[in-house]
This record gives sequence, structure tokens and C-alpha cells, in this order.
Amino acid sequence: MLSIPRRHFLIAAAGTAGAAASSLTPLGSRPALAQESENGSGSLPEPFGSKIADSLIVHSELTLETERDAIGTSGITAKDILYVRNNLPTPSEEIVADPDAWEVQIEGVREPRSVTVGELKSMGVETVSTVLQCSGNGRGFFDHETSGSQWLTGAAGNLLWSGVPVRDVVEALGGLEDGRNFMTSTGGEDLPEGVDESQVVVERSIPVDHAMEHGILAWEMNGEPVPLIHGGPLRVVIPGYYGINNVKYVRRVAFTEEESDASIMRTSYRVRPVGVEGAPDQPSMWEMKVKSWITRPLADVESGRVLLYGVAFGGINALERVEVSTDGGENWQEARLLGPDLGRFAWQPFVLSAELEPGTYTVTSRATDSEGRVQEEVTEPNHRGYDYSGWRVLAVDVTVV
Amino acid sequence: MLSIPRRHFLIAAAGTAGAAASSLTPLGSRPALAQESENGSGSLPEPFGSKIADSLIVHSELTLETERDAIGTSGITAKDILYVRNNLPTPSEEIVADPDAWEVQIEGVREPRSVTVGELKSMGVETVSTVLQCSGNGRGFFDHETSGSQWLTGAAGNLLWSGVPVRDVVEALGGLEDGRNFMTSTGGEDLPEGVDESQVVVERSIPVDHAMEHGILAWEMNGEPVPLIHGGPLRVVIPGYYGINNVKYVRRVAFTEEESDASIMRTSYRVRPVGVEGAPDQPSMWEMKVKSWITRPLADVESGRVLLYGVAFGGINALERVEVSTDGGENWQEARLLGPDLGRFAWQPFVLSAELEPGTYTVTSRATDSEGRVQEEVTEPNHRGYDYSGWRVLAVDVTVV
Repeated sequence: MLSIPRRHFLIAAAGTAGAAASSLTPLGSRPALAQESENGSGSLPEPFGSKIADSLIVHSELTLETERDAIGTSGITAKDILYVRNNLPTPSEEIVADPDAWEVQIEGVREPRSVTVGELKSMGVETVSTVLQCSGNGRGFFDHETSGSQWLTGAAGNLLWSGVPVRDVVEALGGLEDGRNFMTSTGGEDLPEGVDESQVVVERSIPVDHAMEHGILAWEMNGEPVPLIHGGPLRVVIPGYYGINNVKYVRRVAFTEEESDASIMRTSYRVRPVGVEGAPDQPSMWEMKVKSWITRPLADVESGRVLLYGVAFGGINALERVEVSTDGGENWQEARLLGPDLGRFAWQPFVLSAELEPGTYTVTSRATDSEGRVQEEVTEPNHRGYDYSGWRVLAVDVTVV
Repeated sequence: MLSIPRRHFLIAAAGTAGAAASSLTPLGSRPALAQESENGSGSLPEPFGSKIADSLIVHSELTLETERDAIGTSGITAKDILYVRNNLPTPSEEIVADPDAWEVQIEGVREPRSVTVGELKSMGVETVSTVLQCSGNGRGFFDHETSGSQWLTGAAGNLLWSGVPVRDVVEALGGLEDGRNFMTSTGGEDLPEGVDESQVVVERSIPVDHAMEHGILAWEMNGEPVPLIHGGPLRVVIPGYYGINNVKYVRRVAFTEEESDASIMRTSYRVRPVGVEGAPDQPSMWEMKVKSWITRPLADVESGRVLLYGVAFGGINALERVEVSTDGGENWQEARLLGPDLGRFAWQPFVLSAELEPGTYTVTSRATDSEGRVQEEVTEPNHRGYDYSGWRVLAVDVTVV
């Protein structure tokens, strides 16, 4: 017998006025979220003018989520539908008027100094595809009460980034100073007056080895200069790590002995039991886990051949394979991966062709990474609702007529 | 001694007011083209509202070219900067309001009928990256007078497409009728009144074997529904073939014994000697050739390490490698390919890091495909100025200060 979590039914009932048994019930539907926003559907807050309203859920004036079924099968996520999560108000458009003039201070190297983006472009270049995912993506699937945006699946996308490898910058500036354990990046947002900077600044530290092996300072996203709203003119990109570590409008990159003292590093983005305060000895939101979810169909479909779509990624590791179940996890079939393999840190769309007779099917997916780690069935609660990846609650009910 | 073609100097002199020796002279520069358009820089004709003006050259109300240095290193070309070439006025936006409702008539199969995009989506799916390139890309580099847009390098881009393989559609409709040698696709444009349809209709035939092996009917481009201006709601995508065969707003796909009688197939897009009329026995603009070009720098650079960028593709074959010369083709060094390999029909950005002292360098690139075919040095003239790929004239002069 299939045991469906309490929340599955609760949200389904709220979202579809009790029609859970006869129509599709994506877990958590737009009505449950609408109260978060003052915007009606079809309009977006000012900074999001070029985004496509129909493909996005508005959580707040600074926060947009991609609709679950807006993710297609191309592999990359278009900027027009990419989620937005900003911890502070977006800087002025002026900073992207002349991207090459943007300056970033490099510290903790033997020859520390300020370098412009124009200069970075002569130091080296690499292109990498990465999943960009908010730490709280899936928060809305937890049973316990959490603060913060109640993201479902759509605080994630897959992008192509071009920029200079962190190691090339370090080499150009004489190499690392001794004893540097972390790369600490500071965002270029204007900070509110009269507030202790360490309380509000976006400043994140990550292990220096990962930064030196995989990190880049990116000026290009999906073939264009990085848009302001996504961190242009220069964004830190840390493949395999959660979005918060991909610091926007980066103005300082310091190789440090210790992690930053900023609140966003010291106590926020820490995984801990429900009810426990954040502290530096708890795991920070760095490496992402293996994960996948079904994207379509999210509406009734006709019987016969039904194509079940989704996206899958390995997190810190490469994706190995993904399986799909149409009976809530009793039986699994390997899905077909679609399109080019964009590399270890990218996601890949998948499809399973299923012959389905009329009825309701609980469809879900389960990815396995290159280290043999299988996507978890259930994600244990944590205080802030981070790191959700449980395949059971990520399921959708598909009604075949 | 380096022999520089006449046109190289002519255009350079026109574009830079005689300063050819002391500053960069991309071959054919914006001033030489401005007379084609009534639009000033910074504004685009109405249908191109979402495009980025700074990255585009306006050839006409229906024709936009990507600036040579707007192509980045991500591998894919963003829709905002992708070239546009339409043979007829763009249909109404209404046709993309409900993409799944769009109908296409399938003929030359055992069970011919009209199918909707919604239905196509249940027949199969594949994702492929392809170079989309106008047959006349590079026309402006020929010495002889040609009619049509004087494209330089920018009537080309690289996209990710998702749609149903042609073979899956054929299979769903009972298989091919006997003796079908071509796939003939008809565009959905409104045709002008009072004109013989065959004179104006966009209808292209391609060999059926290639269509069955590689062709798709695409509803998604770069992660979004195909935009109207690029052929949405449904576009034929023929990997490895010139753009004209990638029929937009396709309303009919017929498997035929003979090639279409439409002018655009019978006499247009035929390669023939200068002064000779088009005829069906001349080669049609089908397969693309191996090609590459330098994209940056296109302005003076400082001496020291200079990163030389470009894009390269194999055309009908996969790309094997690309070399770069900084002395007009006397010496060559293998360039480094950037980012994920997007597959046989995609282009890939490349970079060569060169240590350059002050001086002027003639920088060019030369690609080799998986069959060992090397990009040609010179493209022989043909009447319509198609199929340009000669690396000598594609060179740029880079001044290092």
C-alpha cells in the first residue's frame, strides 16, 4: 500500500477544492502561494520587466519562482523564466552599463589588488554549466512551519556561465598566501544605513580547494552578459554548491583563514534541528544533493502513450541515471536523458514514455549520482527548511482520462 | 609575404576613415552597412522589441545580424541577440498564443492527417543543438556584386531545440508511402494576394534520409517556446543544413517523390557561377561546410597575454579541432575548445591565449571537421554569394598597443 504523506493531501485539497482524486494535484499549487504576493497573475514587480509572468510565481517584490511545468527539455533555463532570490535590494542598472569597468578587490593572495572585469577577461576563461538552486528550494514540501519563501520545485535552474577560473586569478596575483582555508566573497549591494554591516552584508565563505578547482568569476550567462538581476556585471559561480554561495555583483574576493563573521555565513544557511538556533558548528549550505523531479504533465492527459518529463542532477557529483515510477515508488523504470550532457554540475532533462490506461497515477522520479548515491525518499525536517530532495513528496498525481 | 584580398582593404578603409594600419579593422564594419537601414543605432524595427539593439546590425525591417563581437563563449546564442531573416512578413502573434493548438498537415505517409502540436508532444521528443546559419552568411566578404543582405559573420547562431523527431511522426502515422525521396515543408506565412503562390511561398525540400535521421519538429528553443520571430509555434529543424531549410511556422510536412516546384526551391538558393540563372540541377543550399571565425578582440588591446576568441563548427559533420593564426595564416596553433560539447551539429567557442608585443596582427582561424575536411582558405565566387567560409578574408586585424 502506498502511504501518502499528510502534507500531500493537505495541499492538494487546499489547491483544488477537494478534487484531489479526479484531477492533477501538484503538491502545493499556486492558490496556496498567492497570498504571499500583492501582485495579480500576469504582472510582475518592476525589476522583473523582461521576465515572462505566466511562467513565474511571485513570492515577493524580490522573489520569483519558476512554475514547475515551465521548465522545458532544452537543458538550459532561459533567463526570462529563471527564478530570482535576492537577499538585499538590487543595485542600480548603472553598474551593468559598462561591465568591463566593474572592480573587484582580490585579497589573501601574494599581490592583492583591485582588478577590473576587463582585466579579468585577459587572465583566463572557462565555460561551465551549473544548476543554480536556492537552499530553500522545496521548503514548501516540509510539514513543519518554516519562515522564508515557500518554494516548491522552481527555485532552481540550469545555466551556462563563462568567466575566469578562480585559480587563474590567484595565479595572476602571485598565488595564495599561506594558510588560506576559505574563499570569502562579498556582494556589491548598497547596504542599509545605520545597520551593523555584518548583520546584512551578503558575504559567503566556501572551502578554498573547491573554489580553486571549480569556481569561476562569471561575466556571461547563457550567451549574454550576466543580467543585473542575476548578479551582473560579475558573479561568483561555485559549481555544485547552493545558490547563496554564488555571490552577485561581487566586489571583494578574499582568501581567508577563517569563515566570514557575517550573519549570513555564521548563523544563517545552517542546517540544524527544528527549534535550534543557527551556529557556526552546524553544516553550512554548500554542497547540493542528488535530486530530480517530474515537471510535466501537470494536467489531465489522454490515455495511451504519455510522456513523463522531468529534470535530474547529481548535485556535487555527476548524474548517473534517473528512474521514474508511476505507482508512487513501488516500481521503477529507467528514464531516457535528453539532449547533450552539459557536464558534471548541470542538470539534464529526462523523459519516460509510459502506456497509461485511465486512472490516477502517482508519478515521481529518483536520481542516482556517479558515486552511487540515490536521491532520498524522505528529507528529514530541519529548522529553516533547507535541502529538500525527498522523492515521495516531490511526486505529482496525474489523472489519465 | 601575406597577400591580403582587395576587399579586405577596401572595407577597412571605408569603415575606419583610413586608419586601417593603426586600429582594428574588422572586415566590413557597421558604417558600410548603415545605408541598408533607415533605423539609427539603438533602435530596432517593431517586431524585434525584445532584441538587444547594441548587439545587432539592422539590414532591413525583417533582417537583423548579430554583431561579430556580441557572440560570447557560452556555446549557445541567446534569443535576444540571434539574427533574424524572414522571407515574408511575420505572422500575427496570435499563432503563438496557444502553441499546442497549432496544426500541421502531414502528407506522404500511410495515414496522412492534420496533427496539433499538442499531439506531436505525445509522439516523441529529442533535444539537439544546431548551428542556424543563413545561406548568405558572409555574402559581404565576396568581391563581386551580389543582391541580398550583405551579411558578414552574424547571420548565424547556435541553439538548443526540443521537439519530436521526424521519424517518430512518420512512425505514428503508419510509415512513409513508397518512393518518397524528399521531405517538403511549407511555412505558415500569410501570402500576398494576387501573386502566384509558388512564386512566394516558403517551401523547402530536403533528402528524406537526412530528415528521418536528424530532423525534428521543434516547439522549444533554448528552454522556451520557440518565439514567433524564430518560427514558433512549430519550426522544422534540420541539423547540419542551412537556415532556409528550417521552415518556420510549419503548416505542412509532405513526404514527396520530387522536390517542391516553389521558386524558393526550384531556382532560389542554388549555387551557380556568377551571371548564371538559378536552375533545379544546381546544388541546393542544404549541407553546411566546416567553418570558424574570430569573434574578439575587435578593438585595440594591450600587449602581453591576449585571449583570442571565436566559434567553430563542422557543418554537416562534427567539429574536430580549430587552429588560430596571428600572422595571416603563415603559422597556426591549436585553440582550446570551451565548455560542454553540444554535439555533432553545434558550434563550440574556442580561445587561444597569445603573448603579443605591440604591432598589428592579422588573426584568423581554421576549423577541421571529423572527416578531416579543413575550412577553405578562399571561397570561390558564386552568383548569389552563398556559402562563404574562406578563412583568409574572415581574418581580423588586431592592433596591440
